[in-house]
Amino acid sequence: MKKAVGFGDFLVRLNPEGYKRFLQADRFEAYYTGAEANVLSSLSMMGVETEFVTRLPENAIARCAVASLRKLGVGVSHIAWGGERMGVFYVEKGASQRPSTIVYDRKYTSIATAKPEDFDFASAFAGAGWFHCTGITPALGEHMPEVTEFAMAEARRMGLKVSCDLNYRKNLWTTQRAKQVMERLLPMVDILIANEEDCEKVLGIRAAETDVVQGKLSREGYMDVARQLTERFGVQAVGVTLRKSISASDNEWSAMLYTGGKAYFSRTYAMHIVDRVGGGDSFAAGLLYGFGNGFAPQKIIDYAAAASCLKHSIELDVNLSTVDEICRLMEGDGSGRVQR
Amino acid sequence: MKKAVGFGDFLVRLNPEGYKRFLQADRFEAYYTGAEANVLSSLSMMGVETEFVTRLPENAIARCAVASLRKLGVGVSHIAWGGERMGVFYVEKGASQRPSTIVYDRKYTSIATAKPEDFDFASAFAGAGWFHCTGITPALGEHMPEVTEFAMAEARRMGLKVSCDLNYRKNLWTTQRAKQVMERLLPMVDILIANEEDCEKVLGIRAAETDVVQGKLSREGYMDVARQLTERFGVQAVGVTLRKSISASDNEWSAMLYTGGKAYFSRTYAMHIVDRVGGGDSFAAGLLYGFGNGFAPQKIIDYAAAASCLKHSIELDVNLSTVDEICRLMEGDGSGRVQR
Amino acid sequence: MKKAVGFGDFLVRLNPEGYKRFLQADRFEAYYTGAEANVLSSLSMMGVETEFVTRLPENAIARCAVASLRKLGVGVSHIAWGGERMGVFYVEKGASQRPSTIVYDRKYTSIATAKPEDFDFASAFAGAGWFHCTGITPALGEHMPEVTEFAMAEARRMGLKVSCDLNYRKNLWTTQRAKQVMERLLPMVDILIANEEDCEKVLGIRAAETDVVQGKLSREGYMDVARQLTERFGVQAVGVTLRKSISASDNEWSAMLYTGGKAYFSRTYAMHIVDRVGGGDSFAAGLLYGFGNGFAPQKIIDYAAAASCLKHSIELDVNLSTVDEICRLMEGDGSGRVQR
Amino acid sequence: MKKAVGFGDFLVRLNPEGYKRFLQADRFEAYYTGAEANVLSSLSMMGVETEFVTRLPENAIARCAVASLRKLGVGVSHIAWGGERMGVFYVEKGASQRPSTIVYDRKYTSIATAKPEDFDFASAFAGAGWFHCTGITPALGEHMPEVTEFAMAEARRMGLKVSCDLNYRKNLWTTQRAKQVMERLLPMVDILIANEEDCEKVLGIRAAETDVVQGKLSREGYMDVARQLTERFGVQAVGVTLRKSISASDNEWSAMLYTGGKAYFSRTYAMHIVDRVGGGDSFAAGLLYGFGNGFAPQKIIDYAAAASCLKHSIELDVNLSTVDEICRLMEGDGSGRVQR
Amino acid sequence: MKKAVGFGDFLVRLNPEGYKRFLQADRFEAYYTGAEANVLSSLSMMGVETEFVTRLPENAIARCAVASLRKLGVGVSHIAWGGERMGVFYVEKGASQRPSTIVYDRKYTSIATAKPEDFDFASAFAGAGWFHCTGITPALGEHMPEVTEFAMAEARRMGLKVSCDLNYRKNLWTTQRAKQVMERLLPMVDILIANEEDCEKVLGIRAAETDVVQGKLSREGYMDVARQLTERFGVQAVGVTLRKSISASDNEWSAMLYTGGKAYFSRTYAMHIVDRVGGGDSFAAGLLYGFGNGFAPQKIIDYAAAASCLKHSIELDVNLSTVDEICRLMEGDGSGRVQR
Amino acid sequence: MKKAVGFGDFLVRLNPEGYKRFLQADRFEAYYTGAEANVLSSLSMMGVETEFVTRLPENAIARCAVASLRKLGVGVSHIAWGGERMGVFYVEKGASQRPSTIVYDRKYTSIATAKPEDFDFASAFAGAGWFHCTGITPALGEHMPEVTEFAMAEARRMGLKVSCDLNYRKNLWTTQRAKQVMERLLPMVDILIANEEDCEKVLGIRAAETDVVQGKLSREGYMDVARQLTERFGVQAVGVTLRKSISASDNEWSAMLYTGGKAYFSRTYAMHIVDRVGGGDSFAAGLLYGFGNGFAPQKIIDYAAAASCLKHSIELDVNLSTVDEICRLMEGDGSGRVQR
Repeated sequence: MKKAVGFGDFLVRLNPEGYKRFLQADRFEAYYTGAEANVLSSLSMMGVETEFVTRLPENAIARCAVASLRKLGVGVSHIAWGGERMGVFYVEKGASQRPSTIVYDRKYTSIATAKPEDFDFASAFAGAGWFHCTGITPALGEHMPEVTEFAMAEARRMGLKVSCDLNYRKNLWTTQRAKQVMERLLPMVDILIANEEDCEKVLGIRAAETDVVQGKLSREGYMDVARQLTERFGVQAVGVTLRKSISASDNEWSAMLYTGGKAYFSRTYAMHIVDRVGGGDSFAAGLLYGFGNGFAPQKIIDYAAAASCLKHSIELDVNLSTVDEICRLMEGDGSGRVQR
Repeated sequence: MKKAVGFGDFLVRLNPEGYKRFLQADRFEAYYTGAEANVLSSLSMMGVETEFVTRLPENAIARCAVASLRKLGVGVSHIAWGGERMGVFYVEKGASQRPSTIVYDRKYTSIATAKPEDFDFASAFAGAGWFHCTGITPALGEHMPEVTEFAMAEARRMGLKVSCDLNYRKNLWTTQRAKQVMERLLPMVDILIANEEDCEKVLGIRAAETDVVQGKLSREGYMDVARQLTERFGVQAVGVTLRKSISASDNEWSAMLYTGGKAYFSRTYAMHIVDRVGGGDSFAAGLLYGFGNGFAPQKIIDYAAAASCLKHSIELDVNLSTVDEICRLMEGDGSGRVQR
Repeated sequence: MKKAVGFGDFLVRLNPEGYKRFLQADRFEAYYTGAEANVLSSLSMMGVETEFVTRLPENAIARCAVASLRKLGVGVSHIAWGGERMGVFYVEKGASQRPSTIVYDRKYTSIATAKPEDFDFASAFAGAGWFHCTGITPALGEHMPEVTEFAMAEARRMGLKVSCDLNYRKNLWTTQRAKQVMERLLPMVDILIANEEDCEKVLGIRAAETDVVQGKLSREGYMDVARQLTERFGVQAVGVTLRKSISASDNEWSAMLYTGGKAYFSRTYAMHIVDRVGGGDSFAAGLLYGFGNGFAPQKIIDYAAAASCLKHSIELDVNLSTVDEICRLMEGDGSGRVQR
Repeated sequence: MKKAVGFGDFLVRLNPEGYKRFLQADRFEAYYTGAEANVLSSLSMMGVETEFVTRLPENAIARCAVASLRKLGVGVSHIAWGGERMGVFYVEKGASQRPSTIVYDRKYTSIATAKPEDFDFASAFAGAGWFHCTGITPALGEHMPEVTEFAMAEARRMGLKVSCDLNYRKNLWTTQRAKQVMERLLPMVDILIANEEDCEKVLGIRAAETDVVQGKLSREGYMDVARQLTERFGVQAVGVTLRKSISASDNEWSAMLYTGGKAYFSRTYAMHIVDRVGGGDSFAAGLLYGFGNGFAPQKIIDYAAAASCLKHSIELDVNLSTVDEICRLMEGDGSGRVQR
Repeated sequence: MKKAVGFGDFLVRLNPEGYKRFLQADRFEAYYTGAEANVLSSLSMMGVETEFVTRLPENAIARCAVASLRKLGVGVSHIAWGGERMGVFYVEKGASQRPSTIVYDRKYTSIATAKPEDFDFASAFAGAGWFHCTGITPALGEHMPEVTEFAMAEARRMGLKVSCDLNYRKNLWTTQRAKQVMERLLPMVDILIANEEDCEKVLGIRAAETDVVQGKLSREGYMDVARQLTERFGVQAVGVTLRKSISASDNEWSAMLYTGGKAYFSRTYAMHIVDRVGGGDSFAAGLLYGFGNGFAPQKIIDYAAAASCLKHSIELDVNLSTVDEICRLMEGDGSGRVQR
Repeated sequence: MKKAVGFGDFLVRLNPEGYKRFLQADRFEAYYTGAEANVLSSLSMMGVETEFVTRLPENAIARCAVASLRKLGVGVSHIAWGGERMGVFYVEKGASQRPSTIVYDRKYTSIATAKPEDFDFASAFAGAGWFHCTGITPALGEHMPEVTEFAMAEARRMGLKVSCDLNYRKNLWTTQRAKQVMERLLPMVDILIANEEDCEKVLGIRAAETDVVQGKLSREGYMDVARQLTERFGVQAVGVTLRKSISASDNEWSAMLYTGGKAYFSRTYAMHIVDRVGGGDSFAAGLLYGFGNGFAPQKIIDYAAAASCLKHSIELDVNLSTVDEICRLMEGDGSGRVQR
């Protein structure tokens, strides 16, 4: 498939080792991550050429962050340098009945204070076929709705397909503001990834008979939401992940792709979770890989579901799975026998 | 609620990291712990003022132990200093069919060799409303039954409610000796925490149809035991945890409160266990918090069960859960969704 | 039981900590391991005198490897020194739907380039009652079929019982070559350990209705395979482990012993897996212990199944379980209650 | 001595383990630190009652920070809660010719956005004898000069002695702004800690014949600077540390106290450095302890120099030395023999 | 400067943490390294475009190795894939009187079994100005002298300057064989890096009055060796590092550049060593950077000496120093003051 | 040389990693150690057959301790099993001016409560040529002087040479008691290891002009002490280590052997210390190796000094150096060049 470009935040992720709570930690694992970068990293693991656009301050920590992208093969030539700080977030991994906890410290960052003129999207998009961003990006700062809108428009102008993960973050903006901004952006989106909660909160689109906390899901409800999205915004395809949280340690996982007026469902995986952060991003990467390689809809959703299922067995945010590994799971071997 | 005072042993806990066996370890995690201190630490996490009374030797390791209490906000001004050593215990965490193993080295400790005149309970109790100890404390040394009896009497004299966890430890004393001592102490106890095994071994009170190894539990049996305890010793309330061990990794967990001639049961949690040591202590803390804040009996047991359920998802002995987290679980969200 | 001697490869095992993927690791846990050495280490943990024969290069890493055997009490006086290198393998532990991955680097090793004259089996066998090797050993190098055949013949000449684990490794030799060699060796074997896959691939013996990936197992199929093995090669007993892979994290585990024309089945354990590498070796050790101590067939298979079940709860390749622990599980307590 | 109160910033300190560079780290040690808190922690280790005033956001990380103070016995009852974030800084420890590197991310923090009404200094000062802050505090944010001035004035009004470490930080403010603010504050200071660089940059007071990079120091120059400080601002005493940097691993260390028109010099220590961050803070704590306990000037500077010398042998920012240990070094035993 | 291309081995480096001996380690730090790759990594840290040519087996560990190069920005598009294994070496870091120990396991590797047709040097050299290899490369395998000769010839044909570090490895080949091969290669070399030991052993060129073990060095001796090298092989410049080993922990370090018939010496650094492996490679990188940027000879050797001095303060093989850091040391600040 | 037998305590050693203070540690490295076992371990590393006699409790930790001896090849067949506990000690490693600190918890141990009938020295001594113990052993418990005396007498009766390290421990007994006991034991000793402090404290023998804290040593003084020892107790040889403590990080180290009325001095090593615990034990092992192999006196002391110098560069208590490594240092190469 053609080169994929992503645009978004990039933060320092700090987490205690294993299942330690913050109070027990005097060491944090330190990684660099962001929703869009995760998607690109996952695509890069699949052999796709990628390019990540963000804005970072000129210091040694940001240079480490960039090196971590380079390590996975993500292109970093179009990063804008400037501003004062990288965002930081602290993750405490949950287990059993104890949920994971995230403390965000992502205000006043280089990207939050960015302006349109900081970026050169045209050259980043050269030769690319796909542009991915999320609902987090426009929420980051004052000028970011404008920057995101500009980027999407530029992408479309240059013939790229645009994908977007709705990804509502309540501590970044209000639902009102999100609605207002996202309704301007969505008409430019080709492939939309969304969960039912975000659809309801941001767009007021509600799936019938769904109660996230209780973990009940209705296939019809999801199809209904997807239908509304395509009708209202003209998106070509909607991808939804269907998570049933049994506990912080055990989830059921499947996914739906709605396209051409039809819904396609993957099979359901019973997952024992290693790390669930980045699950949605790995799904988006799987979808893009499927579309980018011209898979049929059923194969797209099977691939994306298998990819994101594997992510849950992997520490940290990035899906370090190869196409081979994903296909092996998709084609049936979930038994976990040793690969010698 | 009013200040809670605890009295008991305080030991060095050493455990290999993760699931390593002792033979595989050349590093131990080192923490400081004890049944009563765990209860106070948990209460302190819930915002309750606490004070821990123990006896420790004058050396750098004991000073570290005290600092670890201070870190969690537990008062340490009434610790008696003297004697020769702190106890040590080694814990090897079990998994699946392999049980956890504990090697104790807790003889000849400062508290085991303590005498009544070493402690100033009256000043520790000033302003307090609750006094907690366990059946471990009187078992520690020659003078400890006497010291514990004195402490309980002093507590009651000063108007504190007394709670006690029966907690029989077979390597500290015989059941004969335990029976003889505990039967002197129990009439001074207001709130008793006990499991069916201890009731039978120490007090000869047996719950019908219970076989711990096979993991069958009968609600009627527990109610029967609790009824006998209240009748025989005049305790105001009896709390019991109901654990069904499926394996070292998976347990079912619920709890019963028997008070005012009636039994109240919590719901049952299917737990994937991170660390089960300290589960009983977190239950005691939950009970005390419920009583101390005047909860209704059903809410008390719901709170205590939720608190101790969360403990099992937390490494080490102390329940580092806040009131918010416990209430969120108690009120229904056990799905483990990320808290952003 | 009498001394057990093993002969085979001994490698450096390198694995990322926890569930990290290779790409995430800048530290590997480093252990020394090999199928036959694992069996001896496990027997040594059970109190059996053991002696391991292998060939190692004269360098500091090989000396560490030997020290690790000595630590567990395995005799190392008959190791042949020479050659150029120890084998290395890298293990990435799987979880949930992600299988474990092993990268082997075991060519050109000291044992792969060994010749018959490098070893003094006669003196290693002095006083011993059991000789164990696996189908890996003859696959290691050009002269190794000849060396293994010589060792087995010598063992029988000196009155030792010979046990062998079929253990086909596709990256060491072809099924054709394996068949040719193993068919020469098996007539000298008293106790054979095999799984259905290896029987089919190496010997062309197939169990009806078995499909490993789908995880369906048929007891009749296994009995049938075992019957064919005893008839064709005159082995006295056949041990088979029956693994049902639900995921990389959860397996069902039981085992069958076929001897005297009859099949004996252990009970089935639902295991939450800590590390599955070495599961087969721990089973072999359990079988040998049972035979060596004259257990009845049902007790042999119960013991071997319990032993290998416990192994899955233990990190790394060696079953560090004692006879006491195995018997406790075999006799019914799989509830994982703390052993204080 | 009477209770000591400190006021200042409190940050998350993240550093790679050992001598790793940022680029090599995927784990950071995580501690909570700040110049004034370090002084109080050190005093608390010496048995002095202390209270730390700062402003922190209401999140789990800040609660960990507070627990770390409590662990060392520092009072935390007067911390103001509010604002958006804690500061973060990243430290890479130098060695030999490679200097330590610090990347700061301390803008927009809760204390940087604090206002006078956020703090209740009067109640924090109740019963206290000493108030300590540094030139970092007024540099943190728009209102902080005003808040610091208010705090100092309040301290003096309530009879506390005021100590201040000049501590110029070029990335927080300009020398012009620093001069303007510090010249308003210094007349309220009783004990001033300063190094020659800061005196020159901030106050334009220069010691003759000193060139920091080249590591030459002149005793006369320091006396001259101190004399100017006492004359210009009326401070009672000036403490100066005299560091000769041979390399990042080896320094020579001594100190001067100028008081009553006279200079007192400690002896010089040849230090092999474990961690030099916090060296100045430990010196301030030593000075305060000396003044607070009425030591003679020579003993004050000997004690403060020994205290801060020991700090350099201790990992992280806080001087975890006891009075005993400091006195032992001060009285002559720098041989490092084992203390059994 | 123009792109630099390197060609050589790339191995897994395994070392116990800190100063642990192999026997004490059950964990190894795992990195990927090689003399030529170290030079390129160091150049890449300085902002130079680089490309590394090697041959690696198609497995997950080799893919990690490549990712580690990518992380530092080294180009990896011309790596040849094939063969059976990566080399491995084990490093035990020395201290004080105990030397570092290295156990090599680098035979039969993908590069050792490479043939000329495996590589496409012409396209790797496109646009490049510099080609670097070492005396290790031709020593790796049967065809490697031929491959190296071909690469050098191709480089010269395409106008690249050729640099070579003599780097004799006694466990890879004999001095006779080394002499024979290197004497064919050296006439194609522009910049030669050598130490006196290698010159003597490989080329029979001896510096007067040098005795490495005793640590005496004579400037005249080095000049003499360099003069002989330039005369005999027509190299344009010779770089020599002058190490005086006081102990494994402390060395004196300086360097000489001989070019245009004249010798230029850097100043001497007294280093406290963190890790000395890779010291020579960092020197080579410094030299190349100096030549590539047209520095004057004295500045070239000052820069290369400062660069390699800094390397000794950095863990592992690669000099992670920036041009800024090197210049700061070169220009005089070796005092190790904190860089805030 | 013939088999060496040792008799003494064996403890759990717990230490924070690196230079962390106890207060900073929530992990301890865990090793098993004792003065006499260290001597045997060191001899075992040198290829000598060894056997360690001690008494240990029957628990999992003691079994780990025994495994650690076995790992190094020390014989463990004559250990007496029984009693209640193993001793524990906590070590905090010093640096620069901060001394190492040890907190002992070694009372009431299995060996402290041992009685003569617990041991079978006669069979342990069979075939042995050397018996080593220290002044710690008789100080451990009530019956231990008697047991030690019996062991020494038995050793002499069976023709073993007896070596003893005076090793006074002030927290185990008084100087009066030590004097009384040691004066009974010393006449049975052939080779005595002592430092000047112990000689003075225990035996009242003082070396002129020595002041340990100030670090001044006089060769004449040591000769004088040794002469007195040989005259008073008839010992054949006296070994003394001469440590000059510059700081906890840097020491000068040499040693003297006094035998046949003559003193032999080693050269002096300037050591940068990694871990100094066990330095004396490694010296004793070096002496025994020299005597056991019939070295001339000068070579004995050179070997012992080199051996113990190397120990200081090794983490933990045991000198993991081989004869080759020691000889290489003894013969002149202290430059720390890499051994490839």
